[in-house]
Amino acid sequence: MPELRKDPVSGRWVIFSPERRRRPTDFKFVMEENTALSPFAYGNEHMTPPEVYAVREEESLPNGPGWLVRVVPNRFPALKIEGDLHCDPHGVYDRLGGVGAHEVVIETPEPRLQLEDQPLGGVHRVLEAYKARMADLSHDHRFHYLLVFKNHGPLAGASLQHAHSQIVALPVVPEMVFQQLTMAQRYAEFRERSLFEDILHQELKDRERVVYENSACVVLCPYASRVPFELMILPKKNEPYFTSVDSHEMLQVADALKTALSRLRHSLDNPSYNLVLRSAPVRTTARDRLAHVHEDYRWHIEIMPRIGQFAGFEMGTGFYINSVLPEDAARHMRTVHTGE
Amino acid sequence: MPELRKDPVSGRWVIFSPERRRRPTDFKFVMEENTALSPFAYGNEHMTPPEVYAVREEESLPNGPGWLVRVVPNRFPALKIEGDLHCDPHGVYDRLGGVGAHEVVIETPEPRLQLEDQPLGGVHRVLEAYKARMADLSHDHRFHYLLVFKNHGPLAGASLQHAHSQIVALPVVPEMVFQQLTMAQRYAEFRERSLFEDILHQELKDRERVVYENSACVVLCPYASRVPFELMILPKKNEPYFTSVDSHEMLQVADALKTALSRLRHSLDNPSYNLVLRSAPVRTTARDRLAHVHEDYRWHIEIMPRIGQFAGFEMGTGFYINSVLPEDAARHMRTVHTGE
Repeated sequence: MPELRKDPVSGRWVIFSPERRRRPTDFKFVMEENTALSPFAYGNEHMTPPEVYAVREEESLPNGPGWLVRVVPNRFPALKIEGDLHCDPHGVYDRLGGVGAHEVVIETPEPRLQLEDQPLGGVHRVLEAYKARMADLSHDHRFHYLLVFKNHGPLAGASLQHAHSQIVALPVVPEMVFQQLTMAQRYAEFRERSLFEDILHQELKDRERVVYENSACVVLCPYASRVPFELMILPKKNEPYFTSVDSHEMLQVADALKTALSRLRHSLDNPSYNLVLRSAPVRTTARDRLAHVHEDYRWHIEIMPRIGQFAGFEMGTGFYINSVLPEDAARHMRTVHTGE
Repeated sequence: MPELRKDPVSGRWVIFSPERRRRPTDFKFVMEENTALSPFAYGNEHMTPPEVYAVREEESLPNGPGWLVRVVPNRFPALKIEGDLHCDPHGVYDRLGGVGAHEVVIETPEPRLQLEDQPLGGVHRVLEAYKARMADLSHDHRFHYLLVFKNHGPLAGASLQHAHSQIVALPVVPEMVFQQLTMAQRYAEFRERSLFEDILHQELKDRERVVYENSACVVLCPYASRVPFELMILPKKNEPYFTSVDSHEMLQVADALKTALSRLRHSLDNPSYNLVLRSAPVRTTARDRLAHVHEDYRWHIEIMPRIGQFAGFEMGTGFYINSVLPEDAARHMRTVHTGE
């Protein structure tokens, strides 16, 4: 059974999950030349746990072929879905049972098709899968925070090449998320305006960090990008929860995401990247400290190319050192040829 | 001129340092088989900026041979020593001039001698160099936080093999450091006891995470270790500042550090690692938010082996997933044969 332990000095939680040791190594990238061995390949549905969501052709049966997108529990979950939340302090230390969910979104049946190469409808389907799973998991009162993320490429920690994303449901809200809620709340208190609205307004006025824009979203290189060519997809509508995005708006999000990923790929020769979808916590309780206002928060997507190692400086300060200004990265990405 | 930019959503600072692009790449580890090309090699003192500290043989001259440990400004500094601190907000965004210091501690003239292989006196000399430089840099009123760190091996971001550490002086105190000060302060307010003293007491009672102990320090695998075989060197005396450690105690710190690094190396086949020396901020001003109490804090050393990639999950939550319990790692490291 996994357990969560809290570091009393930093406040950071660590998930101890001995079962993860059994999973395919992160150190080498598994190239599924032989798709017979890939648990995500079309026809290998029996190699994964039973699906929890799928978009399927009519009359196709669950856990068989005929799917377009498929969500299954992770075979090597960091957290287990069974069990109660229990606190079990050990003297000065705090720990919790490792209850949570850990799912994999298999984005396409095609073993070599990357997310940005799917037609718009395919990207839309993946985003709707995120939304559907988040909506479902948010009904479980043990879960306080849902994170959707995607690791692409070996330097980003991906162990399988077949395009996939992951969803984790956590029994606690990460300190990092509280920090963001707090920043948005303090700004609103001081300025009586929305932080995200002001960022959006300034970016659309400055223009120099904007990479792409459609009716619902802006794709930009953040003012304080941690790494060269970092991207943010910021919705124009103020909405704390990704689950509130309607189908029409989601098509625009899909367009922004497809554009962002393909500009990134063509700017840096298919770099490894991590993608994180940030949405307000599904619930905050006394255990999550102060009740935070969610309405000042806005869901968004962060895309961070992995082209260097984080080292002692980043670890010791939480700062990053970046040698490329976002204005220069955005200028390049606005005009890069994507072959479309 | 470098600049510091603050991300308004996360509160995170990023140093933009275009000059760093000129430095040797982090992606491949430079093996200085030909020491003629190494700026850290004995006899190549002219290849570095003039030294700011050195322990030298009698009658040897600065910036020539005859040194045992040598501290020089980084040739590719993240921050520049010249200039005034100026705030230069840009609408919703904050930025600061990139004023600071970035120095390199060349730990030995021997091109292949790792820190833990130096005799005790050599390790002591390196620690005294950290202390001397921290004491000197703390006199500069523009600097608020000093970080000493060491990247060993390619996966830890080291670009040169010759044993070295780095010192960075920052014009702001990182949020991460405030978080630690806050944790220690809240604990003291609530329990009327010291967090670090209680951790030390519990570890010496439990014993199962203790790797090594001498009269001044305990080497342990932290209760919430982020990665397998993470180590912490915790002093027994309550002291917020590393610069207050006296020479006698420093010899014990050197013994603990030498032991920790050699146990780590023999447990994991010379892994890459990051080492971070944490000391209370040298000064906190209104710009660093609330005045924090430093007396509840205790300097310490963190050693984090790099044996996997941090990916979207870690990036999105600040949590870590660890497949090895610290109790198991410590049991192994207590008894591993180090060949001495």
